[in-house]
Amino acid sequence: MRMMDKIHCAIAGIQPLDEKAMAEARMRQDNLTKPRGSLGQLEFVSIQAAGIKRNSRPQIIDKVIFTLAGDHGVTQEGVSAYPSEVTSQMVYNFLRGGAGINVLARLVGARIAVADLGVVSKMERDQNLVDKKVAFGTQNMAEGPAMSREQAIRSIEAGMELVEEELPKGMDILGTGDMGIGNTTPSSAITAAITGADVSAVTGRGTGLSEEEQRRKVKVIEKILGINRPDPKDAIDVLCKVGGFEIGGIAGVILSGAKNRIPVVIDGFISGAAALIATSLSPRVKPYLIASHQSAEIGHKTILNYLGLKPLLNLDLRLGEGTGAALGIFLVEASVRILNEMSTFAEAGVSEKI
Amino acid sequence: MRMMDKIHCAIAGIQPLDEKAMAEARMRQDNLTKPRGSLGQLEFVSIQAAGIKRNSRPQIIDKVIFTLAGDHGVTQEGVSAYPSEVTSQMVYNFLRGGAGINVLARLVGARIAVADLGVVSKMERDQNLVDKKVAFGTQNMAEGPAMSREQAIRSIEAGMELVEEELPKGMDILGTGDMGIGNTTPSSAITAAITGADVSAVTGRGTGLSEEEQRRKVKVIEKILGINRPDPKDAIDVLCKVGGFEIGGIAGVILSGAKNRIPVVIDGFISGAAALIATSLSPRVKPYLIASHQSAEIGHKTILNYLGLKPLLNLDLRLGEGTGAALGIFLVEASVRILNEMSTFAEAGVSEKI
Repeated sequence: MRMMDKIHCAIAGIQPLDEKAMAEARMRQDNLTKPRGSLGQLEFVSIQAAGIKRNSRPQIIDKVIFTLAGDHGVTQEGVSAYPSEVTSQMVYNFLRGGAGINVLARLVGARIAVADLGVVSKMERDQNLVDKKVAFGTQNMAEGPAMSREQAIRSIEAGMELVEEELPKGMDILGTGDMGIGNTTPSSAITAAITGADVSAVTGRGTGLSEEEQRRKVKVIEKILGINRPDPKDAIDVLCKVGGFEIGGIAGVILSGAKNRIPVVIDGFISGAAALIATSLSPRVKPYLIASHQSAEIGHKTILNYLGLKPLLNLDLRLGEGTGAALGIFLVEASVRILNEMSTFAEAGVSEKI
Repeated sequence: MRMMDKIHCAIAGIQPLDEKAMAEARMRQDNLTKPRGSLGQLEFVSIQAAGIKRNSRPQIIDKVIFTLAGDHGVTQEGVSAYPSEVTSQMVYNFLRGGAGINVLARLVGARIAVADLGVVSKMERDQNLVDKKVAFGTQNMAEGPAMSREQAIRSIEAGMELVEEELPKGMDILGTGDMGIGNTTPSSAITAAITGADVSAVTGRGTGLSEEEQRRKVKVIEKILGINRPDPKDAIDVLCKVGGFEIGGIAGVILSGAKNRIPVVIDGFISGAAALIATSLSPRVKPYLIASHQSAEIGHKTILNYLGLKPLLNLDLRLGEGTGAALGIFLVEASVRILNEMSTFAEAGVSEKI
């Protein structure tokens, strides 16, 4: 198991949230000039952030969104509305600042770390593109495992490295994001494998399939699970048989975020599948997760329920890239600003409840 | 009817949304580098903003939140968890920058216009407090009308003036907000009167009543409606009999926003009751409304359904002040930034759907 050392080491380093910081933050929320609990979910998130950051007055200044790209051999089965070449084209779009994630990251003041985990083509060198390529796309998992066990481990480790390499630049919060034509297919497969849900209940239309194409996609995924028989108790087995490199990478980002006591804002369905992998590797990851939104992609709700997460937003988003995470990061920042900047009843001279 | 001239004039000036600008914005959304419709509700909001502002590439730069304060004679019936003095104390808190709305307005880059529509005490002069006092609090509507018909009209006009006075400083979007101890009671009464819903279905716990106190509040509101018999077809009658000065003022803010082609982001339950008044005065207001969030206060859902509005957020907020509107303004800004700043498929050299 020497191969897994890096992952085991991260898992062993994940601590529970700091109860004292959370109790202090709760007490402060209750003394701010508003009826108790009247900021609802924002109050819970601020307290979670306090527990994660071991600080009853946590600050969110440096924000990073990790957008990981990979390609999928399973696109050969006609499961996506877009051709694989779009993955690399969109990565270049990220690097030039023209994609949805660029716009929203600028708006919320986050920097983006774009990484190639397994794009099928050779990418041009770019100082803003982190090369963590595990392979040139996964194998077609309708014919066998998507990747080897070694590659699955490597993809998780690569994600962990991404966080470690960004940490010195400052990171008070992180968001996850993905780009990979065809990646709702492995995400549905992972969701079905780990949660035990029916494939048809967790398989949506991706970037825009017709109803008939969606039915075909369900059959393809059922075939994939039948051929590969991933072991739901072994997350690495699930990842290598029916996963993707960017999904493994995001699982690594999540693990490293938790290990480094950073609030982890997860994006939509693909990031949710990665969260299933990460939490299967260690349930201690869970308290570090914040669900930014509930995706329009049907399987996402199954993931959120399985993980016991309540999404901050429900805007029918299904773009990925970390766009939902960017909006979620804004709301987490709002929550800690409330905690830090509002006056207490005593400070403001406001009367308390009768 | 000379008294109503100002209101009628505003209503007559409300135009339908610009279909051409909306069609152009829709076309641009469909050509941006993302699957069509993948930014869900954000796409709709950006198109709505285009139609409101008669501009297929609308910008949201100058943002104003109107936070209107008023007191309620009905607090004599023990319907609120806080004493009336808190209304003026909170207004001073707004002026010093220590309240929830201050924190969130700062975060989203909005200015706040704080106005006294009918606080029960005499307020100290402050350059940042707009004096639009109609009277020193409403009458106890459990014993008769909350205000005279003239006062109801005056409160709406005062709200309209607030918008007109702020317009020269720049206003690309506005949000509504309220402060008034006891104001969930008139809001529930207005909601029951206009939508026809049962009082018990639209009466919540306000700032923190017990279950028993909530039951008493329902009885008080049923008594109020029985004594006053507001005419659901006459919004001014509803406002004067079971309303509040800040609620009338917010209705005026909404009317003036629509007349001046400004997207109107409505806050929670109290602002929702004001939106019922405004849309009863003229249904042409509706296309200008954006519901920022669904409040934890149960009657708010009835209002949103009645107005056919889908809220952007559902965070169990119930603070008021315009706090939900501030977060909603951020999401509208995000939506138009996407529309304006993302690259098209052609610009980015990204392949389109197969």
